[in-house]
Amino acid sequence: MSFKEMFDQYRVEIEEALDKSIVVDDKDYAGLVEAMRYSLLSGGKRIRAVMVLEFCRLFSGEYKKAMPYACAIEMVHAYSLIHDDLPCMDDDDFRRGKPSCHKQFGEANALLAGDALLTHAFEHPFSNCEGLDAKTAIAAMRELAVFAGYSGMVGGQYIDLDSEGKKIPLELLNKLQLLKTSGLIRAAGKMGAILGGATQKQLETVDSYCQKLGLAFQITDDILDVVGDEKLLGKPIHSDEENEKSTYVSIFGLEEAKKIADELSDQAVAELNKLPGDKEFVIELTNMLARRTY
Amino acid sequence: MSFKEMFDQYRVEIEEALDKSIVVDDKDYAGLVEAMRYSLLSGGKRIRAVMVLEFCRLFSGEYKKAMPYACAIEMVHAYSLIHDDLPCMDDDDFRRGKPSCHKQFGEANALLAGDALLTHAFEHPFSNCEGLDAKTAIAAMRELAVFAGYSGMVGGQYIDLDSEGKKIPLELLNKLQLLKTSGLIRAAGKMGAILGGATQKQLETVDSYCQKLGLAFQITDDILDVVGDEKLLGKPIHSDEENEKSTYVSIFGLEEAKKIADELSDQAVAELNKLPGDKEFVIELTNMLARRTY
Repeated sequence: MSFKEMFDQYRVEIEEALDKSIVVDDKDYAGLVEAMRYSLLSGGKRIRAVMVLEFCRLFSGEYKKAMPYACAIEMVHAYSLIHDDLPCMDDDDFRRGKPSCHKQFGEANALLAGDALLTHAFEHPFSNCEGLDAKTAIAAMRELAVFAGYSGMVGGQYIDLDSEGKKIPLELLNKLQLLKTSGLIRAAGKMGAILGGATQKQLETVDSYCQKLGLAFQITDDILDVVGDEKLLGKPIHSDEENEKSTYVSIFGLEEAKKIADELSDQAVAELNKLPGDKEFVIELTNMLARRTY
Repeated sequence: MSFKEMFDQYRVEIEEALDKSIVVDDKDYAGLVEAMRYSLLSGGKRIRAVMVLEFCRLFSGEYKKAMPYACAIEMVHAYSLIHDDLPCMDDDDFRRGKPSCHKQFGEANALLAGDALLTHAFEHPFSNCEGLDAKTAIAAMRELAVFAGYSGMVGGQYIDLDSEGKKIPLELLNKLQLLKTSGLIRAAGKMGAILGGATQKQLETVDSYCQKLGLAFQITDDILDVVGDEKLLGKPIHSDEENEKSTYVSIFGLEEAKKIADELSDQAVAELNKLPGDKEFVIELTNMLARRTY
């Protein structure tokens, strides 16, 4: 199977599982469930979910048991986008070419839809953990909570907001992105590896890979905000400049930023090569993510 | 030990555990942690945490192992209050006599502090579950996620917002409160009972007790919003009338509402009497909560 075929198969299965993961079971709060589903099922590349499945497969040869966890990480990702788009945060009217959740359902409902998605992320795997050792399930979900919380993604978002309009040093930008963007990427890699039965040393290698990939991914994001195609991206470009955000491009310039992303991507692949198993897919995934054009 | 002494001992231990549950470990997001701690440690009766501990004690004779779960439910409660107070929700400037989180730290930081508290609720017990069977830990945390999520507390909050300014039928008011106010009370009772090793039949009795207690608690809340003392309550009264909310008082009148709360409280105690063990404390707790004057 080619990389593209395997990637598409993962995505089809993820979409099916997400579609079944939240159902309208009560007319009185159907509007809330509709808002949750609107944001959860609005496309996106499902990179984090694919990583959970693929790292599980890499260490155990199978990925089906990791599906509820792959869904959970997409729920956390979807909630974070809903809350990030709110007027008191980035105040974005569009997301993936569609009205953002609060433009579609109102601010209060968007806030609640985000809260409910975050909460459901911690229910769904525990309601669907047949065939998995309970200790392993806890270890995987603990990673998600750590990397999504105050010392992870939310902490990074706090630093990001706190830095708006300021020139921040590279050290702080690295830290911000290690928490914010890389947070869920690290959670995805580690969750998949834990579910697949990786050793402690292998987990450290996976985490090192995820940190490099996350940074390369963010630098590419910064580059695309300057040179990307608005139609392909589904969002306006030049938003960093408008929000006066420090980025890898504002610090290093476009060419140097591209070079750094390339180097990080090579370093990430070098980490992968320390791991056992068939790494062809995840190496191609790494190159796709770090060198993407939209 | 008298009821009051035991209640106070629980509360002292809960405050100590909460104080240790989130620490500032990084200056760059110290402001976020400060906002989380401001809301988490701002007092409150800690009823839900006490229930977790007491139901664990009732079934197993000891309560210390339930402390991380008692902390988790207080984190969920604190997050829900922060988000409820936001301008797009109830727009409340005060909480327990102090400025609400967004008045103190700004809207974006309050939103993030709520998100981070909710996330930490699902990390804390999994980082502190020594001596507990992993399956039991998962079962307890699953209850928290179910009762806090879209088919629980958040669903109830959605119906509440959706009903503002409308006269709603008693059936919908009952449902709303069963989800919204009773949600975490049911989670507290069931989590404690699960951690204490209750049987399935006992869990059903605990849930029935919690539903009756939750409703009595809410009716008393509605009554206090009409006849309570603002200073003792730490918040303005007559807010339901101002927000045109349907309440048990607006439907039944003050006297009849008091009678219903009394009856529910008696029914709750009758459920407790089906359970084994020393129920003196939890019976006094029930009467205190359902017949409280602030």
